[in-house]
Amino acid sequence: MHERIRHEGMLQKRMSAGEAAALIRPGMTVAMSGFTGAGYPKAVPEALAAQMEAAHAAGEDFKIKVLTGASTAPELDGVLARADGMELRLPYMSDPALRKRINDGELDYMDIHLSHVAQHTWFGFYGDVDVAVVEVVGILEDGRLIPSSSVGNNKTWLDMAGKVILEVNSRQPAAMEGMHDVYYGTALPPNRKPVPILTPSDRIGEPYLRVDPEKVVAVIETDAPDRLSGFSAPDEASKAIAGHLLEFLDHEIRRGRLTDRLLPLQSGVGNIANAVLAGLAEGGYKGLTAYTEVIQDGMLHLIKDGTIGFASATSFSLSEAGVEEFTENVDYYRERILLRTQEISNHPEVVRRLGCIALNGMIEADIYGNVNSTHVAGTSVMNGIGGSGDFARNGFLSVFMSPSVAKGGRISAIVPMASHVDHTEHDTMVLVTEQGIADLRGLAPKQRARTIIANCAHPSYRPALTDYFDRALRDSYGKHTPHLLGEALSWHERFVQTGDMRPAS
Amino acid sequence: MHERIRHEGMLQKRMSAGEAAALIRPGMTVAMSGFTGAGYPKAVPEALAAQMEAAHAAGEDFKIKVLTGASTAPELDGVLARADGMELRLPYMSDPALRKRINDGELDYMDIHLSHVAQHTWFGFYGDVDVAVVEVVGILEDGRLIPSSSVGNNKTWLDMAGKVILEVNSRQPAAMEGMHDVYYGTALPPNRKPVPILTPSDRIGEPYLRVDPEKVVAVIETDAPDRLSGFSAPDEASKAIAGHLLEFLDHEIRRGRLTDRLLPLQSGVGNIANAVLAGLAEGGYKGLTAYTEVIQDGMLHLIKDGTIGFASATSFSLSEAGVEEFTENVDYYRERILLRTQEISNHPEVVRRLGCIALNGMIEADIYGNVNSTHVAGTSVMNGIGGSGDFARNGFLSVFMSPSVAKGGRISAIVPMASHVDHTEHDTMVLVTEQGIADLRGLAPKQRARTIIANCAHPSYRPALTDYFDRALRDSYGKHTPHLLGEALSWHERFVQTGDMRPAS
Repeated sequence: MHERIRHEGMLQKRMSAGEAAALIRPGMTVAMSGFTGAGYPKAVPEALAAQMEAAHAAGEDFKIKVLTGASTAPELDGVLARADGMELRLPYMSDPALRKRINDGELDYMDIHLSHVAQHTWFGFYGDVDVAVVEVVGILEDGRLIPSSSVGNNKTWLDMAGKVILEVNSRQPAAMEGMHDVYYGTALPPNRKPVPILTPSDRIGEPYLRVDPEKVVAVIETDAPDRLSGFSAPDEASKAIAGHLLEFLDHEIRRGRLTDRLLPLQSGVGNIANAVLAGLAEGGYKGLTAYTEVIQDGMLHLIKDGTIGFASATSFSLSEAGVEEFTENVDYYRERILLRTQEISNHPEVVRRLGCIALNGMIEADIYGNVNSTHVAGTSVMNGIGGSGDFARNGFLSVFMSPSVAKGGRISAIVPMASHVDHTEHDTMVLVTEQGIADLRGLAPKQRARTIIANCAHPSYRPALTDYFDRALRDSYGKHTPHLLGEALSWHERFVQTGDMRPAS
Repeated sequence: MHERIRHEGMLQKRMSAGEAAALIRPGMTVAMSGFTGAGYPKAVPEALAAQMEAAHAAGEDFKIKVLTGASTAPELDGVLARADGMELRLPYMSDPALRKRINDGELDYMDIHLSHVAQHTWFGFYGDVDVAVVEVVGILEDGRLIPSSSVGNNKTWLDMAGKVILEVNSRQPAAMEGMHDVYYGTALPPNRKPVPILTPSDRIGEPYLRVDPEKVVAVIETDAPDRLSGFSAPDEASKAIAGHLLEFLDHEIRRGRLTDRLLPLQSGVGNIANAVLAGLAEGGYKGLTAYTEVIQDGMLHLIKDGTIGFASATSFSLSEAGVEEFTENVDYYRERILLRTQEISNHPEVVRRLGCIALNGMIEADIYGNVNSTHVAGTSVMNGIGGSGDFARNGFLSVFMSPSVAKGGRISAIVPMASHVDHTEHDTMVLVTEQGIADLRGLAPKQRARTIIANCAHPSYRPALTDYFDRALRDSYGKHTPHLLGEALSWHERFVQTGDMRPAS
């Protein structure tokens, strides 16, 4: 028997990536696996891109709509973007080639709360899903699928798609079998029931994905790793941000608002998140939990040393070293990690019930605490809102973090008015930069402004922010949230014109 | 036995409103009942305001922090604002005198998602609650309280306050006894359980509020009605908006995305909401449900005629005629109405589970669908976000409605860039003006802009919006969400300077 493809019918459907890609036709809506660079299909998108380029060379139109869990990798978003093969992409991306096309206006992109994607598909808001392309670790005798390094929206794609293409990736550790929790208890309103998760370790579903074998039109064997690099060591700014945050958490424990087990952590990805995780380990925390989207190398280390006792996520985004560590100690990790579908990992109901501590990055915040997570200068999208809204709105604490300046000081992360708003003043509790922390809980707008300017702004921008706020206090039309409308976006305008938010001296 | 105060100990605590008000001292945090002009204390705030004015006349400082459910009435917000007696007000207001003080910068105001207020108080984010002042219909022999015409945050105020002042209002119909559902199953994380509501009519709590009789320091007898006026008949714009919305709902039914029972309605207050409700009745709908914040006269009519089979809310905001109708037919209404605490009426978990159809007003939307619900010209607060965010983020549908112009055409409700954002592009599905409807589901930013300008903008502003968008497409820094930063807020700036968004001709 084939080691990874144990279902006889599906074994018969093996074909090349090129043959499978040929089943995807122009104008189709294609839903693919992949979340934070993990578990995306490795072969079909590249073959499809080649066919698109051939069609374009022959003067034919060939574009599709692409839905995923979240971000993927150059082998998916990169190749399809370079082939100019997408007319619509949702709900999240981080690929440089794709980003450029989007911001050049050549491609439509929908930036969606990650908890909304599955249900909006069920509701019919995005139309029919023609084809699903999903990476799996293996296929059982009965046709059920062993999910790969991310679950994302795969349950939804397999359920909703008219046709299914499976990529069976033998490079993904077979040891992942049993670590997933796929919940089939969802329903459409008015027939919904509570999601029965009371703690991050609660198992509520099945370890396998279901698929109707009749819908499977192609099975492709692949052998390529997720393309994830290990993290570089945190820089000074990230360490300082982590330091402020950890001091704040200590303060909350002393005030009795948290225990030393904290509450389930949701942590974004990247340098700052890693520095925070490292700080938690150094701070002597033990037995914490995570209810989050992504498990990266840093969190694996914390699970290993007992800082984190259990982690629930939807994606396992590990470097090759991380995969090796995981594989060597799989019995240990299997007891301490669950991967869920993203409508559950990010579910507002569960996030609010558990009282997550939501830790997310930002591009900028304004002096009133409105946060821009997505758009540079209000117009050019960076990645997307991802799950930050699911967690920030519903968590026990919503924290947004960024270095106070970028590009060698030419950009301030604290601005008079955010050039795009993803998280409103109603949803932001704590801002942190390497300068310090602004605890906005219980503060009205003008109190927020004073706190943010004093605690979070870089000293090189603080006088200009203070000057803006003082003049707005005097001259604003309304004095509840004072602004000078003719000047509120002038910092961004200057950046667009000169590459620098600072006035020419 | 006293008809309304059947608990002997509390009967002994009767005193005048002035004596009770004297228990409130400068600097205290005072939590009061009241939600949408219903169930607010009628006597103590006025007596307190008089004492504040006397103190101020004597050169003494006397300000307090005031927390409520939502908006109250002139007898609470009005008198305390005129007495300059508040240093902080949260989470919502609609009183003209208070609004003026806030926008003159004389008073801090926090505008908070209504589902967040109770839990943020439990979490300790607003500090201690010194005194609660809560209107009730009566006090039982065992000390439990019959809630009044709104429940709001009263459970939380009674639980959290150090001292409790009760106003027993004999004008409120005794017949309301038994119509409330106060849920005592909440907890702090990590001990939370699912909220067991599966349908709007599910009763999960008790009909009475609990209070520790030891904490009750004063009982005041009052006899004044909620100050609510009946609604005027919908104007032409409201009728047109309702017409577009009803046509859209019909379309969703034909597409199979809704049944003719729709899904539980959440409906804001005011002219447009009333026109929508009237339209549902005329459209022949039967047996609908509401899971909403407020039941007004219009909804009472729909319950009477069977259009709505059951309504769950937190406030019963009726005119005197409405109260009369309710009292005459109380046995009928009691089977069809529940009033809950506002952390339950607005709970994201329940709103998402039920799949509410969220219908809310707005001040303005920009061409990308970002909605401003709160701030005129970005700086001057109107009322507050209220529960619109709780429902819009979590509902099956999120609809925002407004006439396309205000002030005789001098203000456009569709603008290049929202001057304040309460609901982001990620949370707005449908915009409606009397001009038409923009269905934004499945649309990327530039597609949204074209749809909103074409369908919702007033013809007198459409050319200027099209011109802005076209030039932004050409000249914007990023072409994902094109904007001209130097011009994006110029309409608001012109309004502030000239009282008119239109350029001088």
